Amino acid sequence: MPVMQNPDDTAGRLIAADEVQGTSVYNRAGDKLGSVEDIMIDKISGKAEYAVVSFGGFLGLGANEYPIPWEKLTYDTRMGGFVVDIDKRILENAPVYTGDSQWGDSEWRKVNQHYGALAGSSAMR
Amino acid sequence: MPVMQNPDDTAGRLIAADEVQGTSVYNRAGDKLGSVEDIMIDKISGKAEYAVVSFGGFLGLGANEYPIPWEKLTYDTRMGGFVVDIDKRILENAPVYTGDSQWGDSEWRKVNQHYGALAGSSAMR
Repeated sequence: MPVMQNPDDTAGRLIAADEVQGTSVYNRAGDKLGSVEDIMIDKISGKAEYAVVSFGGFLGLGANEYPIPWEKLTYDTRMGGFVVDIDKRILENAPVYTGDSQWGDSEWRKVNQHYGALAGSSAMR
Repeated sequence: MPVMQNPDDTAGRLIAADEVQGTSVYNRAGDKLGSVEDIMIDKISGKAEYAVVSFGGFLGLGANEYPIPWEKLTYDTRMGGFVVDIDKRILENAPVYTGDSQWGDSEWRKVNQHYGALAGSSAMR
């Protein structure tokens, strides 16, 4: 994955969804929390609203998938991954993603409320 | 893929990148042109800038991958796919995507110029 191997490459501003899937997620201390499993995109605006992150049991977090509002993830070119600026306590109680078929507006609203996110609002329209 | 099977589902506003990959692309006449292979996302803003679309030799278009500015694609819930509002002549001469490792600002700029796109501008900063 050239973009990830060389994030300073001019192509580095854009990344293929295929490459985001699998990108590492770190906390502010630089500990790897897990990796991005998928991206939830608003069909109309094209805005990535949530990253579905798998925490491999790190920090006592279950090996579940957690949708995290995109703006809570900051891409760090040095680390070649996303840094999530969320307290451990908030992550510990985070809503677990159980799949498209079961998730509607109310579930996404709970995610926004949990993280105090303003984004994802376009998914609430 | 529940969202695609039932686009009127409340979860229908959001779609997983995994599901966009493989979604059909139609022209204004409703002819299937091909399908989305991947999505190019701005790492920072999270905006999907381009859909990489594979035209399976339809309309004499080669079976190549063409990056198309996202705002040229309109999601049609009835068809369960994207409708591309681009003249056949423009598609015929469209830039062919040759992969992340070879694509930088100049290549993306050519795509924007070809389609007269304003979006993708965040990738030009």
